[in-house]
Amino acid sequence: MSKRHTHTCPIAAMLNIFGDNWTWLIIREAVYGATRFGDFQKNTGISKNLLSDRLSMLVEEGLLETVDIGKTGDRHGYRLTEKGQTLRPVMHAMSLWGNSHLYGDARAPVTLHDPTSGEQITGFEFHTVSGRQVPSDEIVATPGPGASAATVRRLEEANQS
Amino acid sequence: MSKRHTHTCPIAAMLNIFGDNWTWLIIREAVYGATRFGDFQKNTGISKNLLSDRLSMLVEEGLLETVDIGKTGDRHGYRLTEKGQTLRPVMHAMSLWGNSHLYGDARAPVTLHDPTSGEQITGFEFHTVSGRQVPSDEIVATPGPGASAATVRRLEEANQS
Repeated sequence: MSKRHTHTCPIAAMLNIFGDNWTWLIIREAVYGATRFGDFQKNTGISKNLLSDRLSMLVEEGLLETVDIGKTGDRHGYRLTEKGQTLRPVMHAMSLWGNSHLYGDARAPVTLHDPTSGEQITGFEFHTVSGRQVPSDEIVATPGPGASAATVRRLEEANQS
Repeated sequence: MSKRHTHTCPIAAMLNIFGDNWTWLIIREAVYGATRFGDFQKNTGISKNLLSDRLSMLVEEGLLETVDIGKTGDRHGYRLTEKGQTLRPVMHAMSLWGNSHLYGDARAPVTLHDPTSGEQITGFEFHTVSGRQVPSDEIVATPGPGASAATVRRLEEANQS
């Protein structure tokens, strides 16, 4: 999306940072434990220029940090910051969706597991502040404290329909 | 991403369908209940050409379906199919992330609620096939039944590090 989306919206804000799909793949690699520039490049197929650009952006946004890896040619690598680690559940949610709805579970390329029991992760449940579980199709979006007038109007329309 | 990612990967497969960030915003609007072409356009800021293209693609992928709305100038609108509804939790996960990590909860533009209790949705938990909850930072990605040789190698490297 060359044009940045300007409504107050947490999804648009996330997409504005990510820029295009390469960023998701770079984060995927960081989640899988890649640190070296060459590994990010090899595992995503991104060009060197674009990768440099995105790594710098992700460091600037506080999602990646540089880490000394010294041993070989590279002087430093990149790993998820504490803030960057919070992207793990979002990536896992996408991964489960892609498996179930694009490949089908019998042809899933990457499965998620509980390392303790070895059992496969099959889904996730939303919960409220008091721990009440809520089915995702019942969840209602309402204007939050930072909603612009346009966002308030938009969600009022949505909740009337 | 003009180049389609060719590794077997559920995240890349999802991004390959979505194409660019406009698609996420179109799905967001469908989740909020938009059906009319004009509403999708107004609420996302996308161009007519691009919107036509994306709506057709989403119908072709089985994520949206056309619905007769007759009353005004438009002959039909678009709504999520049953498959498309499965994108709701992914959108909700992105929404929670954007609120917490980009705006901060005190300035969240859009909050999610349980319509029964009115309580705010604050997170989600992954579970295994037997219902065991697993913290997202403990989840391990392993090659699934449809993994290519490259994906197997990639994840073996990841799980050794």
